[in-house]
Amino acid sequence: MKSKGFEGMACSIAGVLDAVGDRWGMLILRDLSLGLKRYDDLRRSTDVTHATLSSRLKHLEQSGLIERRQYQTRPDRFEYLLTRKGRDIILVLQALAQVGDKWAITGDAGPPLRFVDRNSGRSVKLAVVDEKSSERVRSRDVRPQAGPGADDLVRWRLTKFDA
Amino acid sequence: MKSKGFEGMACSIAGVLDAVGDRWGMLILRDLSLGLKRYDDLRRSTDVTHATLSSRLKHLEQSGLIERRQYQTRPDRFEYLLTRKGRDIILVLQALAQVGDKWAITGDAGPPLRFVDRNSGRSVKLAVVDEKSSERVRSRDVRPQAGPGADDLVRWRLTKFDA
Repeated sequence: MKSKGFEGMACSIAGVLDAVGDRWGMLILRDLSLGLKRYDDLRRSTDVTHATLSSRLKHLEQSGLIERRQYQTRPDRFEYLLTRKGRDIILVLQALAQVGDKWAITGDAGPPLRFVDRNSGRSVKLAVVDEKSSERVRSRDVRPQAGPGADDLVRWRLTKFDA
Repeated sequence: MKSKGFEGMACSIAGVLDAVGDRWGMLILRDLSLGLKRYDDLRRSTDVTHATLSSRLKHLEQSGLIERRQYQTRPDRFEYLLTRKGRDIILVLQALAQVGDKWAITGDAGPPLRFVDRNSGRSVKLAVVDEKSSERVRSRDVRPQAGPGADDLVRWRLTKFDA
């Protein structure tokens, strides 16, 4: 899980990818966000080897995205939970699901998962909104700009943007 | 770039991760969404080896997320562009950037990139909204439900969800 090339890169995107590790890490976060907690359940859900699951759980714990908690002694058993930081990733999972559903990537039957507002029961989705007013903004009107943390590489990339 | 374990899995999230390939694939899509087009620019931006960049570009092309276009002959030179399908990934990139900015993962200087509405010039963000009314919904009120394309594994995962 070495993050070669990512250190020092002023990129929030790369930083989050690094914390997650790889797609197995992302699928484990998906499962924990759905309420799975136990090692055996994660194994069943992802169908990965013990070596892969263990190493990804360790990486996610080191990244501060999940915590391991003992729920039984003799024999010792542990469960895994999203930390507050880990729960932030749900935004990324929703974006991934929304794109996959749009592509009908799982077939013509429709989305495997729906996300609903527990109060209204109605479907929700991610949308681009004005940060202050919360009004909807069309995706095609969104432009990237250098932020306060931009380094030379970020500023150089932005010179390539043709609006 | 083998997608072991992903085929047949009724999961839009896994499907999109598979199409992107890995985090290098995601960073290439980031660069193309920022307007970078040329192989050498992608090399400079990502600082990966030729072998890595070539294989990821090929994978993204096979996934239908990018297209290669010749812009010069003698010598032949090609540029890379997001397809319409590839532009859908911008939602995922925005989610990743938003989470990384929240974590201040690149340091205390602030976000490297800002996303603004080109009409108002104001910052935008991703938010959960009601699919029909576009009204904001609080993240903590969002619940997953089985959709029409759910298979047994998806339904089993959802039995673990404690609301």
